[in-house]
Amino acid sequence: MNRFKALEKSEVGFRTPLDEMMRHIKFNDQGLIPAVAQQFDTKEVLMMAWMNRDALQETLDTGRVCYWSRSRGGLWRKGESSGQIQLLKTLALDCDGDTVLMQVDQKGPACHTGRRSCFFYQVDGSEITVNADVLISPDELYKK
Amino acid sequence: MNRFKALEKSEVGFRTPLDEMMRHIKFNDQGLIPAVAQQFDTKEVLMMAWMNRDALQETLDTGRVCYWSRSRGGLWRKGESSGQIQLLKTLALDCDGDTVLMQVDQKGPACHTGRRSCFFYQVDGSEITVNADVLISPDELYKK
Repeated sequence: MNRFKALEKSEVGFRTPLDEMMRHIKFNDQGLIPAVAQQFDTKEVLMMAWMNRDALQETLDTGRVCYWSRSRGGLWRKGESSGQIQLLKTLALDCDGDTVLMQVDQKGPACHTGRRSCFFYQVDGSEITVNADVLISPDELYKK
Repeated sequence: MNRFKALEKSEVGFRTPLDEMMRHIKFNDQGLIPAVAQQFDTKEVLMMAWMNRDALQETLDTGRVCYWSRSRGGLWRKGESSGQIQLLKTLALDCDGDTVLMQVDQKGPACHTGRRSCFFYQVDGSEITVNADVLISPDELYKK
């Protein structure tokens, strides 16, 4: 039985070695797992991106969030070009070991558009409305 | 150009028809999009699951959250067997139109284990610890 399933009746405070659980994480056919980043104090959901095993391990080892960029096909150390890094506070896996949730401390905007959160296209009846302003222009964020 | 990309410089309050944006949502190769559910008042992230176009449309039409069950291969009206329904408060799409974030009002546990949230396997140093208790036994939740 999958180890996440096997432990699901455990009580609060039950502990088990991380390295063994790491072997049971369900990465998808591309070797990736979705990772949600939530600002630790305001609880705003900032973004969802993907991690491969190396990105997850690096995030845990360094305390700086590292994703896998599907468009670039490489490790994506969040903030490496924009300076808007994510410091890891806590990381949790879900009941079936196929999704990551992180509490982070996001410096500035998380979104490539310069907004704090990526989720700014909000449904309002038969329309979508933009619900957040750009904090820093992308031209400024990604200047050479 | 993708419509999500085309509108990303818009100011707060900009409005555009939902049905046109719906045509530009990026479902994956299986026709699915990840959907994150957050309790609207406490801001706790409850779960991440998948929607196809029909599930997303039904969720918007009915105000009750409907996912796509990859294991069962069918629409999954959250709470249909457990009674633990999710009422939709607001729904947003992200900058590139490939992730959904919902503010919901979750009745009871969101997780099939009977816990409030699915994200109860928390990394703590070299271990994982279970950080939440079962609120309602799954035997009770899914009784015939």
